Amino acid sequence: MRVAVDAMGGDFAPREVVRGAFRVSAQIDFSDHIVLVGNESAIRSELELAGGQVSDSISIVHASEAIEMHEHAAQAMKRKRDSSLVVCAKMVKSGEVDSTFSAGNTGAAMAIALYDIGRIPGIERPAIATIMPTLKGKALLLDAGAMMDCSPHNLHQFALLGSIYAQKVFNLPNPSIGLLNVGSEPGKGNELTKAAYKLLEQSGLNFAGNVEGKDLFDHATDVVVCDGFVGNVLLKATEGIGEFIVDLLKQELLPGGNNIAAEVAASVGRVMAKFDYAETGGAPLLGIDGVAFIGHGRSNDRAIASAIRATLDAAISGYVSAVREALAL
Amino acid sequence: MRVAVDAMGGDFAPREVVRGAFRVSAQIDFSDHIVLVGNESAIRSELELAGGQVSDSISIVHASEAIEMHEHAAQAMKRKRDSSLVVCAKMVKSGEVDSTFSAGNTGAAMAIALYDIGRIPGIERPAIATIMPTLKGKALLLDAGAMMDCSPHNLHQFALLGSIYAQKVFNLPNPSIGLLNVGSEPGKGNELTKAAYKLLEQSGLNFAGNVEGKDLFDHATDVVVCDGFVGNVLLKATEGIGEFIVDLLKQELLPGGNNIAAEVAASVGRVMAKFDYAETGGAPLLGIDGVAFIGHGRSNDRAIASAIRATLDAAISGYVSAVREALAL
Repeated sequence: MRVAVDAMGGDFAPREVVRGAFRVSAQIDFSDHIVLVGNESAIRSELELAGGQVSDSISIVHASEAIEMHEHAAQAMKRKRDSSLVVCAKMVKSGEVDSTFSAGNTGAAMAIALYDIGRIPGIERPAIATIMPTLKGKALLLDAGAMMDCSPHNLHQFALLGSIYAQKVFNLPNPSIGLLNVGSEPGKGNELTKAAYKLLEQSGLNFAGNVEGKDLFDHATDVVVCDGFVGNVLLKATEGIGEFIVDLLKQELLPGGNNIAAEVAASVGRVMAKFDYAETGGAPLLGIDGVAFIGHGRSNDRAIASAIRATLDAAISGYVSAVREALAL
Repeated sequence: MRVAVDAMGGDFAPREVVRGAFRVSAQIDFSDHIVLVGNESAIRSELELAGGQVSDSISIVHASEAIEMHEHAAQAMKRKRDSSLVVCAKMVKSGEVDSTFSAGNTGAAMAIALYDIGRIPGIERPAIATIMPTLKGKALLLDAGAMMDCSPHNLHQFALLGSIYAQKVFNLPNPSIGLLNVGSEPGKGNELTKAAYKLLEQSGLNFAGNVEGKDLFDHATDVVVCDGFVGNVLLKATEGIGEFIVDLLKQELLPGGNNIAAEVAASVGRVMAKFDYAETGGAPLLGIDGVAFIGHGRSNDRAIASAIRATLDAAISGYVSAVREALAL
């Protein structure tokens, strides 16, 4: 499988992106290949600094422009047609690569994926799917921020996309689907979730009903669907509360013995790693007619490596074809 | 100040409610008084079991019915007119007490507060306000679940209610207001938050802009407004993730030395107490034309005591009159 990596995307690009790509290039199969897309001389010098070079497993494609982290998504998409993000998307569309990854501007990545790769026929709106850590491992939450105002039909399609992704990528034969809601009973929720509940009940998917915020981490279901506003607030709160608890624990433990503090800091570190983008890899843009992943802007080389690995794995899984087939039925 | 306590509300009622009320009755001022409302003989025997008795600070008012935790709110309100919840609300309305508290059915408590006490004139919809722990202490989040589908005007009124409550009860001269959103820039969000942003900008309140989920715990603002669906999902996720992190930490630490595990368990306990209903007290129903608090169904006697204390403090603060005055301007 081949992946086009946006070397200019992310808070620490191109350095950390190039280092992450180089890191993972040593571990991939002979048939896999990473294309670094962006300013060629900058990428080449970073690659050399990291002790690497262009090889059978890693190459460079030049792109003359880069989209900044806080640029207006639609404007950047229209104006910067030779940006690394656009070049990556075009390579997916043309079949030069099987997948693409960017840790850059999420809004621009989504806009460009929609415009330059397009949606899977029949999918109304794509969603960002993120992995949430749970007591049993991980659950897929979508939408995590692509679509702020959703219809019940959108949530139904997110459930289908999430179900197929969990089958293909997590190897779950019949993933359970939950609807993020304020209570477990069917009549609970806002207008959106009440209507979505009815659609999901009739969907033929393995719908397990409503999932409350607190049940998410107990792994109530394998896939949890919600609108992009709620999903994004939840995702960021999860990040925030993890950091908050660690800060409080440090304050608590500092007056104690050094041995205890060191031991606990290590334990907390291992626990918090479950919430770390560096561990969970990137997030797929589901509904896009190709494998397109995004990553956290502040990704370091380890997070980039993990996300590129996840992108390649997803491409191998064939989830996009599986969605196409499901919709054609 | 006088408070009517729904002795029949909560998973462990009447026992824990009566014990909590008795506990706090020993600490209140001479001018304060607690009325336990519900099945008189059950309350009396629980009070005696706890070593208490009817006194200058605690009395009993009989109510022949009790609303169960999962009863349909509107139906229960209509059918059980002699329920403890209804009797409590009527006592507020008639002025027999200054405030009321229930750890029972939240939906029924809200429905009954609306019907039997009523809204503050000018307030379209009430909100449940909860206290979120932050690095600087606490922030007020509303709505935490009263109103599933909100208009921009509702959020504007929540901001006003939260601002006055924080002034009066937290003694903050000019509380800052944040709008829970998916990004910090003004144009971010769904249709609701984009429109609410404009109203809040022009509101004359101390509006500090958008607050993301992760900033909430850093105490981005003193008050954070959102619709009841998002607020409730967030509140429950906060609970869930705290328990999840503690579970993971225990797994991490169990193989370690006993001294360390014991020390850390104590630290984690102190940290998690910040998320504990027993510590934060109850949640006011803001917008109701009287002081009405609700508490977590699983409240133990300590949580009940804390919530009754908070209810009395809120009554003393005069926040309801302050909202009335602000709306009359």
